[in-house]
Amino acid sequence: MEVTRTLARYVVDAKPSDIPDAVKHEGVRSILNWLGCAVGAARHEAVECALAALSPFAGPAQASVLGRREKTDILNAALMNGITSHVFDFDDTHLPTIIHPSGPVASAIFPLAEYQPVTGADLLHAFILGVEVECRIGNAVYPNHYDVGWHITGTAGVFGAAAAAGKLLGLNEQHMTWALGIAGTQSSGFREMFGTHCKSFHPGKAAQNGLASALLAQKNFTSSNQVLEAKRGFANVMSTKQDYSRITEGLGKTFEVTLNSYKPFACGIVIHPSIDGCVQLKKEYGLTGGEVEKVELTVAPLVLELTGKRTPQVGLEGKFSVFHSCAVAILYGAAGEKEYSDEMVRDPRVIALRDRVDAVIDKKLRDDEVYVRITLKDGRKLEKYVEHAIGSKEVPMTNAQLEEKFRGLSDDILGAEQSQVLLALAWDIEGLKDAADICRMSTPGS
Amino acid sequence: MEVTRTLARYVVDAKPSDIPDAVKHEGVRSILNWLGCAVGAARHEAVECALAALSPFAGPAQASVLGRREKTDILNAALMNGITSHVFDFDDTHLPTIIHPSGPVASAIFPLAEYQPVTGADLLHAFILGVEVECRIGNAVYPNHYDVGWHITGTAGVFGAAAAAGKLLGLNEQHMTWALGIAGTQSSGFREMFGTHCKSFHPGKAAQNGLASALLAQKNFTSSNQVLEAKRGFANVMSTKQDYSRITEGLGKTFEVTLNSYKPFACGIVIHPSIDGCVQLKKEYGLTGGEVEKVELTVAPLVLELTGKRTPQVGLEGKFSVFHSCAVAILYGAAGEKEYSDEMVRDPRVIALRDRVDAVIDKKLRDDEVYVRITLKDGRKLEKYVEHAIGSKEVPMTNAQLEEKFRGLSDDILGAEQSQVLLALAWDIEGLKDAADICRMSTPGS
Repeated sequence: MEVTRTLARYVVDAKPSDIPDAVKHEGVRSILNWLGCAVGAARHEAVECALAALSPFAGPAQASVLGRREKTDILNAALMNGITSHVFDFDDTHLPTIIHPSGPVASAIFPLAEYQPVTGADLLHAFILGVEVECRIGNAVYPNHYDVGWHITGTAGVFGAAAAAGKLLGLNEQHMTWALGIAGTQSSGFREMFGTHCKSFHPGKAAQNGLASALLAQKNFTSSNQVLEAKRGFANVMSTKQDYSRITEGLGKTFEVTLNSYKPFACGIVIHPSIDGCVQLKKEYGLTGGEVEKVELTVAPLVLELTGKRTPQVGLEGKFSVFHSCAVAILYGAAGEKEYSDEMVRDPRVIALRDRVDAVIDKKLRDDEVYVRITLKDGRKLEKYVEHAIGSKEVPMTNAQLEEKFRGLSDDILGAEQSQVLLALAWDIEGLKDAADICRMSTPGS
Repeated sequence: MEVTRTLARYVVDAKPSDIPDAVKHEGVRSILNWLGCAVGAARHEAVECALAALSPFAGPAQASVLGRREKTDILNAALMNGITSHVFDFDDTHLPTIIHPSGPVASAIFPLAEYQPVTGADLLHAFILGVEVECRIGNAVYPNHYDVGWHITGTAGVFGAAAAAGKLLGLNEQHMTWALGIAGTQSSGFREMFGTHCKSFHPGKAAQNGLASALLAQKNFTSSNQVLEAKRGFANVMSTKQDYSRITEGLGKTFEVTLNSYKPFACGIVIHPSIDGCVQLKKEYGLTGGEVEKVELTVAPLVLELTGKRTPQVGLEGKFSVFHSCAVAILYGAAGEKEYSDEMVRDPRVIALRDRVDAVIDKKLRDDEVYVRITLKDGRKLEKYVEHAIGSKEVPMTNAQLEEKFRGLSDDILGAEQSQVLLALAWDIEGLKDAADICRMSTPGS
């Protein structure tokens, strides 16, 4: 069984017209979510450090660092955009493998689109194929590969980036096979890096290395034809599970991007039901915070175990406080990156409301269930039961909610007006004559 | 036990004056051997492909691609020089781990020396420390790590490159620890790639990624402090053996570079004794080839099993022919890359002599033993018993032999005169005010 070559052949032969509309739509939603995350984190210290370190050695101004004024060469742009897309831990999740699929793939091909013009439809197609490749490879080795300590977004992502970039470069089957080989032999990234800048470095390098792999293969830089299945190749060296059927069966019939999900809130997933309940009550009753006497949560045990911090002092600690999270949810109707800033956790209004939030444990509740009861100062009692939080498989984010998330990330960087234009371009990607319009509109002041 | 931090602290605190002269001398020999290999392979198709693919995205002309006229940014120079240093499979070998230690380390720091001036003494010191780091890490996980399928020159080499570059950048202990972390989370390279361009890509990427790691750490890009020993770090994820004492014990007392060895001949090691015997007889008796009636070898079984090709058609096949190898050894007194060209295996003089070489097996012989008997047309019989081939641990290459190898690689690229000047610079590295003189003298026409 030729695993690598079969996958390469599929990518080479695939046509945009073969992709069902619903799949394309999920691809657009994934790109839009990726774009918002990358633009929103444009001023994060991880990318500031990376640019300061590497810019003296970068090439021509070929591509955009999203959300910033700098242009750089396409390989460095891929790295930087991969970093920003993941550094808030706010990007997408392929549910079967917990790969964050868009970071490595989209971060590789948008810079390429700025260098070598391509239609939005072709870019979307390449994106969907790249996601397909990385997630199928992930399926073949998950969970063993992840359990041993590999950060699967980096290790599988590099294949997706190579495949998508290779598709845009028009590689033939041999070159695509080599591109996967060159990518695979760079597969890397330890989970030990979680909590450091290196975590977001992984999708960045996956994007950069995957793009470089496709470029090298195009120029006849040779590699193995069996990087995935060889005795000393990816699956055998980096995993104790190798289910190659997950890579080769149903190609062109099922699409992994349809299993993608998006985080509505910029914090650990166990708080999401509580935030969801508070946001719903805020909207239904027009709450502004001052009228709240107390908030009572009934939650699963894990919620207080992981996020029971009563008095967070800095933004990052706020992400581990269900109390802070519910306070901002009621005050702002959101729990994006902005609501987890240092200023926000120290804001007297937030603290005052936070101190009115209490939580009790009910061991019978699942992790994604919650009862929220808000008592108002006028004596009214408001209640909300959340069975599955927004953003879960059962209750995916609506397009409107994705837009709201996007604006919450992008407005501060680009301004509300440009942010809205960018959003419209992203929704319309399939109709764009030049996909790079999206990159250009991601530059502040465009 | 803080493994990573202990190693980082050692590198940060180490002083050139702490290094014994004999260790420095072996460092110089390693650099000289690396330099010859890199210059000699300057026109290999692997580096031609890599330059064609990546040059459009490269940065300013900061550093030399050794043996070529192109200048490129230091990160791309590290990649290209790492590729050329290994692509002939003619570089050095750290005997306990079969790491090729100079490729990743020297390829990273010479470009850096062109960007940020450094004395030859400091560069030599950083080189010795880089080799120390990668080989100690290799010792901790070898052979299990190699056996599972990792190309240890790439996987361990990236640490050595980061350490050496970090030393030249003057990193403090925290930054050096992060540099090792950033490097480690890029550790990669499968043995499946042997036989393709990707094999030499591994030390190239190790050099490039290691150098980038040091630059990133310098600008406060954060990483784990325990990349080597963490549960989900290098040794646990990538090996079933973790002997941390090999990393932390005897630091500054023993030096891994003293266990380095150099290949005298550009072919598989099992033919080396036969070539060695023929070269010795040629020199002792002034043989030119035409006077030879027949050559009779008595060899270990593995020699004919691996290199018994009677009629090689192309250069690469010549490397698997003990007959061709002995013919060129007698005709040219050498078996370098030149003696394994396509032209050479098709040369009628070589073929005529090759057909006069015969070999019989003696199961009692070790792989590195051989009896060579040459009968001349005038009836004389010449004999040579080789107990250990030149280049082995027991019979290391002399300085004169390293020079001969160097010239065999470099003369065709730089011309004999410039080659000789470069050789003198390399021997004198400790006295150079500017280590980059070596890079500049490696440019054809300097």
